[in-house]
This record gives sequence, structure tokens and C-alpha cells, in this order.
Amino acid sequence: MVRAKPDGRSRVIIEAASPEVDGGVFPAKRVVGDVVMAEADIFTDGHDVISAVVLHRRDEDADWTEVRMQPLVNDRWRAEFPVEHLGFHRFTIEAWIDHFLTWHRDLKKRVDGGASELELRVQLLIGLQHMRDAAARATARDRRKLEPFLAALESEDEVAEKIEDLWSEDLLALMWRNAERRFATRYGVELLIEVDRPKAFFSAWYELFPRSAASKPGKHGTLRDVEAQLPRVARMGFDVLYLPPIHPIGVTFRKGKNNKVEAEPGDVGSPWAIGGDEGGHKAVHPQLGTIDDFERLVRKASEAGVEVAMDIAFQASPDHPYVKEHPTWFLMRPDGTIQYAENPPKKYQDIYPFHFESDEWEPLWDELRDVFAFWAQKGVRIFRVDNPHTKPLPFWEWCIRDLKREWPDLVFLAEAFTRPKIMYRLAKAGFSQSYTYFAWRNTKHELTEYFEEITRPPISDFFRPNVWPNTPDILPEFLQYGGRSAFTTRFILAATLSSNYGIYGPAFERFVHQAREHGSEEYLDSEKYEVKHWPPTEDDLSELMAVINRLRRENLALQQNATLSFHETDNENILCYSKTAQENAIIVVVNLDPHNPHSGWIDLDLATLNLEVGRPFQVHDLLTGARHTWHGPRNYVQLNPQIVSAHIFRIRRRVRTERDFEYFL
Amino acid sequence: MVRAKPDGRSRVIIEAASPEVDGGVFPAKRVVGDVVMAEADIFTDGHDVISAVVLHRRDEDADWTEVRMQPLVNDRWRAEFPVEHLGFHRFTIEAWIDHFLTWHRDLKKRVDGGASELELRVQLLIGLQHMRDAAARATARDRRKLEPFLAALESEDEVAEKIEDLWSEDLLALMWRNAERRFATRYGVELLIEVDRPKAFFSAWYELFPRSAASKPGKHGTLRDVEAQLPRVARMGFDVLYLPPIHPIGVTFRKGKNNKVEAEPGDVGSPWAIGGDEGGHKAVHPQLGTIDDFERLVRKASEAGVEVAMDIAFQASPDHPYVKEHPTWFLMRPDGTIQYAENPPKKYQDIYPFHFESDEWEPLWDELRDVFAFWAQKGVRIFRVDNPHTKPLPFWEWCIRDLKREWPDLVFLAEAFTRPKIMYRLAKAGFSQSYTYFAWRNTKHELTEYFEEITRPPISDFFRPNVWPNTPDILPEFLQYGGRSAFTTRFILAATLSSNYGIYGPAFERFVHQAREHGSEEYLDSEKYEVKHWPPTEDDLSELMAVINRLRRENLALQQNATLSFHETDNENILCYSKTAQENAIIVVVNLDPHNPHSGWIDLDLATLNLEVGRPFQVHDLLTGARHTWHGPRNYVQLNPQIVSAHIFRIRRRVRTERDFEYFL
Repeated sequence: MVRAKPDGRSRVIIEAASPEVDGGVFPAKRVVGDVVMAEADIFTDGHDVISAVVLHRRDEDADWTEVRMQPLVNDRWRAEFPVEHLGFHRFTIEAWIDHFLTWHRDLKKRVDGGASELELRVQLLIGLQHMRDAAARATARDRRKLEPFLAALESEDEVAEKIEDLWSEDLLALMWRNAERRFATRYGVELLIEVDRPKAFFSAWYELFPRSAASKPGKHGTLRDVEAQLPRVARMGFDVLYLPPIHPIGVTFRKGKNNKVEAEPGDVGSPWAIGGDEGGHKAVHPQLGTIDDFERLVRKASEAGVEVAMDIAFQASPDHPYVKEHPTWFLMRPDGTIQYAENPPKKYQDIYPFHFESDEWEPLWDELRDVFAFWAQKGVRIFRVDNPHTKPLPFWEWCIRDLKREWPDLVFLAEAFTRPKIMYRLAKAGFSQSYTYFAWRNTKHELTEYFEEITRPPISDFFRPNVWPNTPDILPEFLQYGGRSAFTTRFILAATLSSNYGIYGPAFERFVHQAREHGSEEYLDSEKYEVKHWPPTEDDLSELMAVINRLRRENLALQQNATLSFHETDNENILCYSKTAQENAIIVVVNLDPHNPHSGWIDLDLATLNLEVGRPFQVHDLLTGARHTWHGPRNYVQLNPQIVSAHIFRIRRRVRTERDFEYFL
Repeated sequence: MVRAKPDGRSRVIIEAASPEVDGGVFPAKRVVGDVVMAEADIFTDGHDVISAVVLHRRDEDADWTEVRMQPLVNDRWRAEFPVEHLGFHRFTIEAWIDHFLTWHRDLKKRVDGGASELELRVQLLIGLQHMRDAAARATARDRRKLEPFLAALESEDEVAEKIEDLWSEDLLALMWRNAERRFATRYGVELLIEVDRPKAFFSAWYELFPRSAASKPGKHGTLRDVEAQLPRVARMGFDVLYLPPIHPIGVTFRKGKNNKVEAEPGDVGSPWAIGGDEGGHKAVHPQLGTIDDFERLVRKASEAGVEVAMDIAFQASPDHPYVKEHPTWFLMRPDGTIQYAENPPKKYQDIYPFHFESDEWEPLWDELRDVFAFWAQKGVRIFRVDNPHTKPLPFWEWCIRDLKREWPDLVFLAEAFTRPKIMYRLAKAGFSQSYTYFAWRNTKHELTEYFEEITRPPISDFFRPNVWPNTPDILPEFLQYGGRSAFTTRFILAATLSSNYGIYGPAFERFVHQAREHGSEEYLDSEKYEVKHWPPTEDDLSELMAVINRLRRENLALQQNATLSFHETDNENILCYSKTAQENAIIVVVNLDPHNPHSGWIDLDLATLNLEVGRPFQVHDLLTGARHTWHGPRNYVQLNPQIVSAHIFRIRRRVRTERDFEYFL
């Protein structure tokens, strides 16, 4: 238990570095172009001056780059470094007692305190020794630069003159660079940063079922039909087009319309009941087209500025080729049948889960990883993973890391609607984005509390929310009963609260709000079990979506979550929040009641908006074009949901102060 | 970077165990008799049932004891175990998917859901296999107990009868004990608990200078004189008698009265300027007595129920034998003189700090540890360490651990008034108790915020406050200007907010409040630099102290900090807090204004007091004897500091409910 005596001369302590996820077990997530703010508590006994550096490097590089840390308050230190390449980056921290800087600081105090010439002579001898030692450690180049300083100290000059030379910033820089680091302390862990591409953090998803994409009613859509939708999706400003599974669908125990246990002839089944005679997870449903069609869609989408996201659901219909080829990947019951999915007493006989405790688990893992690899080879770089929380967490950790070694630009969205700690663990295990509880967060209190949790460290270091007001599985009550303005409100909230968001598009933009039955969140006549037709209409949300997505692209503030701040309002139905990035500052005010107009006072935290107290500022409503001059934190708003349920204000600051002054007074 | 494929069949995740200090680098602190509540987040993919155990053992034992964990909410699990021996205890956590319990839970659901007999027959076969496997793993004794269950399942009985047998609690216990743990997950770290004796957590300290203990004015006190004080200290209810350093005092650069730079003939110097011709840290000042006298004092004190705490200050006067014997333990300046202590431009020429970066640091560490060992051998078990934050933190970690290996009952109090992170790190490094910022926390807001920080995890897992309203170095402004009631108030706060507290006694109990000058916290004519005489007086705080110390002994609630809760009051001058332990519940209400009477409403959080809403309860003022019946959370109080500045209420519940009912209605 008693530790070996360390080298007792390493006196600096480094604690609580950040970003650090679970003590460094998992990487913190960033995207290319981010600046990492690395911090730690650094202190030592006594009053000596500390120097500290962050050492960082790409995982594949041999050499560290050092960045000098600066003290903040309360023994917290910080340095910043950019991450410019995909993949893993690592950093750690080194700190040491800087005897030269300690001496230098104290010399100043001695001079100011009127130390005797005798005392100062002794001090200069001490400093000279530090400088000679540094020169001995230095490169030839630095040594040459130190020489004049040494010569001056060794000269017959007056003490006062010698001291004058010592205040040189050049000298401080030279001495810092060549400091005595013999007893430096190194932080105990090398911390990882996983660097993704920017789309991992900023994306707008649009989900549609390819089989409903035909231009005529009654026809089974194809991947070619999806191609025809691309211009519309792009026009609305979405940059990810997410398709539910496109594989062959099982026929055994196929579900009928509205999830009936018995399918009727002609029923197309659920795309998530994967696998049939035509193939499994590496095949395309024949009625949708061919693998070539799919590759072509991926390419065409890319040309339109839209990226195809594929759905990967690890489960098999009873007709999946795996069932015959790899029976050990499924759990056999004592009666010789295969264990289907169940949540007793409910049975899902159209689905076989994989048996992850199989003795053959290693080939199973390899095959599942190869499913992703197969589609990555066809050009897919974004995967939405179905119910990852019902597959082992160690599998995901291995699988995602292994795939990203070959394709570091992969993005994985975890479709896990489960308990919070499991959702967080999936994110730690490698998922780039995660579905959230947003669909069930409607009140001011709920939204504030939830978004404060998920947009701040430590959660935000590993968990990137992707918020959806609806999905094919989730038609929230708020949309069922809130009328059309409920759709507007929820869309604006999703698109401005979170940098990543998405909608199950055709149903959302057309205000589809009928549930299968009262108390259910299932859509009536759900597209999950039948082919739908979504004829073009003027009467939809597409224009608002296009506007909001444009505002997201034009305003850096909306492209991140770290600066999200909620502001006080005196009406429970009015939510006010802001985001800032560099000079860009956006204030969003939303009437959360879809039925009634509301008004109230908002109380802005001016400091988070970089606004000076006592100076008026202009807010420009990017939805209506209206401009208002606001004075101080308290401002009045009113919102009628029948007209528009939100303000999206951009703060306009006048650059020329004098003109402001004339203008406003 | 990509980890090796783990055994993918270990599917349970264990995270965020507690108590855990810095990821297990440091032990959590407890005392003998405590019950440790070990917790962790435990979850897995899917819906399987988890079983989990805490494994714990004394550090020196080979075998683990297992305690089954119970789920709380939100995937948090807990088990409790007692710690009954001094020294280190360790624990970790193991969890596994319990396929039998999963099957058993689902069987119940199937039966309730009306599963077919065919289906149930299959299920019984699955269960039988689990039970046969368990029997194969079990001890002969458990196997015998399983046999009737197996026989019943294998019999020709009706399915319904077979199922009836399976609801047996005995079966569940047997199956749990013999569960399949092949793929169990073990938490990554073994966590340490350092178990101290109860006094490390609950103690009342009284500080006096032995040289001022003489019964006649003008005489230098002796250790024998201190003996004569023991009955009085014990009568006041203190259980630790802390003596400033008792070693020989240097004469070179000795400080005069009131810290004058030049001592006058007869000036006795500061006890912290340690070492002279007569010896150093292992010697007793000749005017105080001999080592034998000291050992006798330790023994006599113990007989009186008081324990002597010794002050260890690692620094040397220029006359300390170390200076000649071990010159390398001090920093030599280029002019051949030894570096004295300074905080430029201030000089402390009577003190040489040790040079911990000396090449001879290892013998230095050994010698300093031996100072403690020397006095431990003389019977000392409590050390108050002077300014530990000016000695290397790694030294303390090694030194304290090493000493406690031989004397696990040692208690170390860190006298560090420095920045919070350094204070906390000293506690992590092994100090049993720590001085705090209490002396400078006077307002309701300050006291609430500070005590909420230091009495809750994670801080309270390693940091034990010892709060002092004054010390020989600190006469806070509040005591200088608050009159006598300020002393009462601060004493009551110290003794009831914190389980450990202390006073610099003779000055405190006699209301000494004159500072050396305005703005200074130094006592005028400080005992640090001169011999004082404290004649007996009737007019002091000793009676109140005796009462409060008795209340602390009689009320378990006041012997710990974990249940400290603050309650709302509508007057900024009235502070209300409570502590509970088992059936004992104490509410303290303090008027923080030493000059004026205050009244107001307090709003009790009844739940923290284990009080039922809507039932009246009696509060018994332990200071005045008054009893009040209170109804509900809101209650009125008034306190005149000229009479008594606090209520210390004990909640009296009536045991017989019916009588209560008659009485109150």
C-alpha cells in the first residue's frame, strides 16, 4: 500500500485536466478546425513560480508540440491548440518549478522594496548561475542570444545597470525556452481527442422512405425516384438524407399495415425486418433497385450538396441468409426453434436478435463490422444505427474504432431511446451523434434543464445531440394536438437549440398528426408498414425550413452548442435563449404554447451576449425583417403562434460609437 | 489506439463507483464503526437482469467478502459494508448478466400474460438447464438443496405445479449464490478506504502555550504546570490538548515582543523558531522540562480523558543542530550564507526553511519522518503540522502513509491556510483533518456555501474540516469588534457546524479581542512572542463551553457532518441548520449579528429532519431548557445576542401516536 518514495524533487502537482472523459478512458470529441482549450489544476508547495506546457500531437506522430499554459484563477491553467486533421489527437501536460522566473519575480520585489546593494549583488550572482546553466542547456542559436546577457552580468557595470538589462522580454523568453525541467511533473495520463469532420457537429437531417418516393400513387418507389427528390431536399437546405433500411424484407411473420400481426397479400412489411431470399444486410431490396442504383444515388446526392445516411439495424428476419449460414449466431431454444425477439408477454416473431454470447461471437463481430465496411466502400460515410443499446457496448467500442481507422470521416448516429447512462455510454463508445429526449421536452423548465445538461461539459465533451421533433416511431402528443403552429415551434426549437437536428420529413412538413389511437405515439397508417404517396403541395413547411436552414448556415452561432444560454422570462410560455460565436450573436424567443398568443418581459444576461450594460443595441428579426432598438437587459416581446411562434434575432452592433451616440440620444 | 477485441461476452458496464477519490488514486476516509455505502452505475445492453456484488477486504487480507448490491434509481446500485479495523480497506465491484433471474422474471410475465402450455413447457426446459448448470457449480451443500427443485422439474407433474415451485425465495437465493459468472465484469480499479479512529472525525481541541501555564505571573510555565490544567480542560469537555512546539528556541535573530525584529534581553522568542544548543525537533525546551516530563504529561492527560496533540513545524532556527550537521539540507547562497525564509521584500532571518530539492533529499525525508516517529514512541498520536503547504506534497504522501503503517491510530491536522486546491490535495495526501476558512466566514451566505462544499462528497470523502474561531495567528475582525456575544456565536457555530473544532483557549474564553493594530489579525502582545499569565476568572466562557461539549457528546447528530442541512430563513442575520443521526435530530438557529436582537421565520425542510408533514413536534432548547410545540415547516424565532445568540433544539417526538393526537387537538 505505501508507495515507493518518488523523486521528492518533483514538487509540482497536476490534477483534473480537461477535456478528459472518465479519466482518459474515452476520447473527448472535437471537429476539424476546432481549437481545444486544455486546462488543468497546477500548483506546488510554497510560493515558487510554475511554468507549464501542454504537449500535443496527432496519434500517429512521434513528436510532441508544446504550447505554454497561462494561469487563469484558482490554480487553473490553460493553453489552446487547434486540431486540423481527422483521427485521434493526444495531449498531456508538463509543469515545473521555474527557479529563474521565481528569482526574477523576487528580484523585482527586492528592487522595489529597496534591497541593499550588497543583497542585490548576491542576487545577481544567483541569477547569473541560472543563466549560465540555461546557456549550457540551450541550442547554439539560443546560446548566442544569451551571451550578451551573460557578458553584461559578468562585466564591471554598476549593479543598477545590470539589473536594467534583466527586465528584457527577450531574456525571459530565452530563459523560459531553456528552463531547467529536470524535476518536471508529467500528468499521469495522455488524453485523447477524437477529431471528426465538421458535419459530425453541424448537420440537418431529412428522413424519407425510398419506397414512398414514387411520383405516382400506388407505385413502389425506387432509388431512382429518390434521386428526383434531391433538388427539393437541397432547396430546403438539408445536408443529410437519411434512408431507412434498403435491404430485402423477410416474409415469415411479416407484419401487416398498422403493425398487424398477420400481413395481407401485397403488404410490404417493415424495412427493419431485414433479410430474405434476395439477401441480407449487404443487398438492396429488388423493388428499390440495385447496388449500382444506390451508388449512383450517393454520388448524385453528393453533387446536390446532400449526403446519404444509411440505416444499419442489426437483426434478422427468419428469412435472412445468416439464419441458415450461421445458426450459432442466434439463440437456439430447447425445442430446436430460434429465439425470436420478445419483451414478454409481447412477441416479435418477425425478428431474430443476434446472440452476442454465442461461442462464435468473434466471427459475428467481424461480419457486423463488415456490413458497415461494405457500404463504406460504396461511398456511404454516415450511418444511423438502429437500437444500438440492444447490442453489447464493447462491440460498438471495438467496431466503430476499427472502422474509423480506415475511414476516419465516418459519422455514426445512435438511435438509442433508452436510459440516460446507456445513451451516454454509447456516445463514449464512439457514436458521433445521438438521438435525445427532445421529442418529450416541451415546457420551459424541461427544455432549459435538458439542454443545459447536454450542451455543457462533461457531457458535451463526448455526447453530441441530434434532436428530432418526430421520427417514424415517434409522433409526440405535442404535434398530435398542437395544430400547425406546434410544427413550426418544434422545428424552430430543434434547428436553433441544437447544431444537429433532423425530421422525418414528408410527414412533418405536411403536418401529419394523426396517431394510431389515443395515447399512442405511432402514426396512423404508418409508413413503416406500407408504401405512402406524398404528392407535392404548396401548403407545407418547406419554405420555413429553407429559411431556417439558411439562417443556420449564415450564422456561426447556430453551428455550435457550447455557448447556448437561457435567459429569464416572466412568462412560463416564453422561452428565450441565445448562442454566440465570434461576432455573431443570435437570440431566439419562442412562444411554447401553440394555441395562444403570449407576451412578457425577457431579462437578458448581457455579459453572455458580449453586450455592454447601458449601451443600446439593435435586434434584427431574421424571420420578419423587423428591427428593434433595445436598451438594457429587460425587453418586451409578444408572439402570436397563429402568425409566427418565434423571434430569431440577430444582434446588430453599430461599429462607429460616435454615430451611435448621436443616433440613440 | 484501437483496443484489442475484449471478450465480447462480458456485456455489463460498471462506471462511476463511489466513494472514489480522483479515480482511486487516493483513499476515501472513514472511521472505525462507519458503514461504507459503495455505489456504482451498472447497466448493460438490452433488457437482461443484472446481478452485482461489492467485494471488499482489509488490505492485509487475502480473501474478498461479497455483499449483494441493490438497484436504486437511474442505473445506480448500492451495497453497504462496515469498516471495523484501523488501516486500509479496499473494495471493488463485480456484475454479471443473470440469465436465470432474467428467465425467472420473464416466466412470471409469460404466466401472467397467459402463455400457452406448449410455450411454458419450452420455458421450463430452459429453466431446468440453468438449474442443472448451477447445481454443477454449487458446493455439495447447495447441490443437495437444489436437488428437490430439480427433481420436481424433471417429474411428471403438471406444468402449473412445476411453476408453483419456482416462486420459492429459497430457490432464488440458491440460484443467485451459484450464478454463472463466467462473463462477469470487474470494475477497473480497486478503491481504497482509509479507516481512522473515531477521533479523526469527532474531536474538540483546546490550544494553550505551556510556557504561560505557570500558576504565578512572571514565571515561565512548565510541562508540570500544564498537568495542573488538565482537570479544567477536561471539565470544559475538550478531548484534545494541543501544545505549540515545545522544543528549544533559537537565539540568532530571535524575534522580540510583538514580533519586533530585535529581541530584548529576556525575550523568550517564538516557539516556532525551532532549535538551539539544547537540541532540535527531538528535544524539549529546558525551561519546560524534560522528555520524561513530557511523557508523564501525555500519560496524565490520557488518564483525564484528554489527548495531547503535538505541533510539528519543519523549519530550523539558525542555531538548530541540523544546520551544522546537515548543511546540505539548507540552500546555500553564492556568498556562503544560508538562505533564510523570505517573502520579498519581507525577511524572516530567524528561520531557515529546509531545501527540499537538495541532492540529500532522501536522508532529509527520513529524518523528518523520524521526528514524528520519535514522539510517537513517546506516546503522541495526534500531530498538528505547521504550514504543511510549504513542504512538498509528495513528501507528505510518503511520510504519513509510512508512519501510519506502524501507528495506524495516528491523526494529522494540516495547518494550511492556503489556496483551496492545495488544502484539498494535502487532505488527499493523508492529513486526517484540516484547518479551514471558517475564521473568515461570517455571513449566512458565506457559511452556507462553504459548509455545503466541505461537508458533501466528493470533498467530504477525503477532507475533514477542523474549524477554529481563533488561533494564536488569527484574531478575526468579527471577534475584535463584536463584543462578548461574538465569542459565544462563533463558538456555537464552530462546535455545531463541524464535528471537529478547536479554540486557542485562554485568549478565547477570556474574550481577548485587541489586535496589534487596526486591520491586523495579530493579537496585541501575542503569546507567540512572550510568556503570558492567565489567572483564573469567573467571568469567562468556560461554562458555556462545558455545556456545548456535553451536548456534542450526548447527541450523535453533532458527531458527524454528512447530514448537515441548511434551512431557509427570512432574515439575513438568522442562520438555521440541522444535523440528524439515527433518531437524534438537532436544529441550530443562530443570530449572526452580535450587536442586535433579530427575529424571523424559519422554513424547515421537514423531510431532512424525518418529520411528517402535518404532525406537530416538540423542539427542546438544550441551552435554556425551553420546550415549544411547532406545527409544520414555518416557525418563528427571536434571538437577543445579549442573552444568548443561539437556539440548539433537539427534536422530541412523542412515541405514542394516539396520545399525541389527544394532546395536540
